[in-house]
Amino acid sequence: TIFVITPTYARLVQKAELTRLSQTFLHVPQLHWIVVEDSPHKTPLVSDLLVKSGLTYTHLHMPTAKDRKLQENDPSWLKPRGVEQRNEGLRWLREDRRAQPGGDNQQGVVYFADDDNTYSLQIFEEMRSTERVSVWPVGLVGGMKYERPVIEGGKVVRFHTGWRPSRPFPMDMAGFAVSLKLVLANPESCFDGEAPMGFLESSFLQGLVTMDELEPKADNCSKVLVWHTRTEKPKMKREEALQAQGLGSDRAVEV
Amino acid sequence: TIFVITPTYARLVQKAELTRLSQTFLHVPQLHWIVVEDSPHKTPLVSDLLVKSGLTYTHLHMPTAKDRKLQENDPSWLKPRGVEQRNEGLRWLREDRRAQPGGDNQQGVVYFADDDNTYSLQIFEEMRSTERVSVWPVGLVGGMKYERPVIEGGKVVRFHTGWRPSRPFPMDMAGFAVSLKLVLANPESCFDGEAPMGFLESSFLQGLVTMDELEPKADNCSKVLVWHTRTEKPKMKREEALQAQGLGSDRAVEV
Ligand SMILES: O=c1ccn([C@@H]2O[C@H](COP(=O)(O)OP(=O)(O)O)[C@@H](O)[C@H]2O)c(=O)[nH]1
Ligand SMILES: O=c1ccn([C@@H]2O[C@H](COP(=O)(O)OP(=O)(O)O)[C@@H](O)[C@H]2O)c(=O)[nH]1
Ligand SMILES: [Mn+2]
Ligand SMILES: [Mn+2]
Repeated sequence: TIFVITPTYARLVQKAELTRLSQTFLHVPQLHWIVVEDSPHKTPLVSDLLVKSGLTYTHLHMPTAKDRKLQENDPSWLKPRGVEQRNEGLRWLREDRRAQPGGDNQQGVVYFADDDNTYSLQIFEEMRSTERVSVWPVGLVGGMKYERPVIEGGKVVRFHTGWRPSRPFPMDMAGFAVSLKLVLANPESCFDGEAPMGFLESSFLQGLVTMDELEPKADNCSKVLVWHTRTEKPKMKREEALQAQGLGSDRAVEV
Repeated sequence: TIFVITPTYARLVQKAELTRLSQTFLHVPQLHWIVVEDSPHKTPLVSDLLVKSGLTYTHLHMPTAKDRKLQENDPSWLKPRGVEQRNEGLRWLREDRRAQPGGDNQQGVVYFADDDNTYSLQIFEEMRSTERVSVWPVGLVGGMKYERPVIEGGKVVRFHTGWRPSRPFPMDMAGFAVSLKLVLANPESCFDGEAPMGFLESSFLQGLVTMDELEPKADNCSKVLVWHTRTEKPKMKREEALQAQGLGSDRAVEV
């Protein structure tokens, strides 16, 4: 099973994002979607979408602590997003798996999939064989066409990245998967929301693996099979003008 | 069969967009994807993607006339996009269908699906029963939460839109489908690239149908089942800096 952990938060494009993401996952055999809402409670929008998705899923929620939450007009790099949600997904997964037969020796893979990225179906086949931590390129991330581990003799020797290649693991969240075994064997490993910018992935991976142990996928990291796409925030100028006249869109219609 | 006509053009996010779109369509039975590249020739990126998609498709190309093409820094509303490509899709469809048995009386539906929108699977089931022209709401379009036809007594009586509701058909491209019969019975109907802003959909529909004949779908136009999402243009600052040093991403890697 591939356990996919997805943080998500309420915004205009949320339903659209989760809709197309669920369509992607519906093509992937043996996928368990762990959706963690950044919210003090589960919302009906996400609950309904999950029920109707046809996927195997777990629906969780965990609000980002107020002082850690990105505000409306903050630049997007100011604070890491989705941290408490990914950690909540890990907490649930560890607890749930402890209740299963097989103890710490269960087959499975854990992947962190943000709700706005684009995933080829092949990337899920690549990650299925993860022994410890597997890695591959990510397209359109970090101001680059792609970032990727550079492979020599079948091993990761350095990273192609536009910024601080000396970070322990200068990789985007979308560029690695971890075996369930390793996650269970390290019950305290999680993401550090206080990590400096660009070090969030490293904060999790540092305790789990060394660069030497990374398993290159996607044809020795030569293929881009996942893209760090971002969706534009829709303009609502006309909506606001009409609302001021009492002629706005019906709030009862879910978008 | 649902014939889906999609204009597409080369840009950084093109492969990501077409990847997730193809995953959506792969869930839809009896769908024929007509992909029309805005290009003087078919590109290997799109050709390969289509071959691997598992979909029934036709791959066409038609470059936008130079004086009609939106330039790098033009605002996106300056010129309509995808016009010549949609018309080329219509031309191919009419020609191809003429060669099939059944003449002008063939079952089928034609839908214009831009490559960056988000489509629920249900919208395809809704449009399957189109007799002439069916209509439904579109989310996140025109500066509004949604635009939609307003229904009274099962008929469209006006439109909820943020701008010039008096246009003949003030609807987005994603908000209607046309029966194949009607397309074949009107062999000259196409989109007018010279239509004033906001009148492109009207230029096509005006010759085909009256407001009174429109068939409301999506529970009397009360549900949003398609979203006019747009994908951010990725920043390439680091890439350009590295390229200047000869350390840019490998051009041979397709993104
Ligand atoms: O306040 C927030 C902002 C983002 N996210 C989620 O965290 C992940 C990463 O956020 P985003 O995609 O905005 O980051 P970026 O694209 O800038 O890396 C996504 O799954 C979001 O849905 C969240 O849970 N709460
Ligand atoms: O120069 C261009 C720009 C756009 N398009 C296509 O035309 C459609 C509409 O363009 P876009 O999504 O950019 O328009 P908007 O989102 O602003 O309505 C999409 O399928 C694009 O891929 C195109 O063929 N050539
Ligand atoms: Mn993102
Ligand atoms: Mn668009």
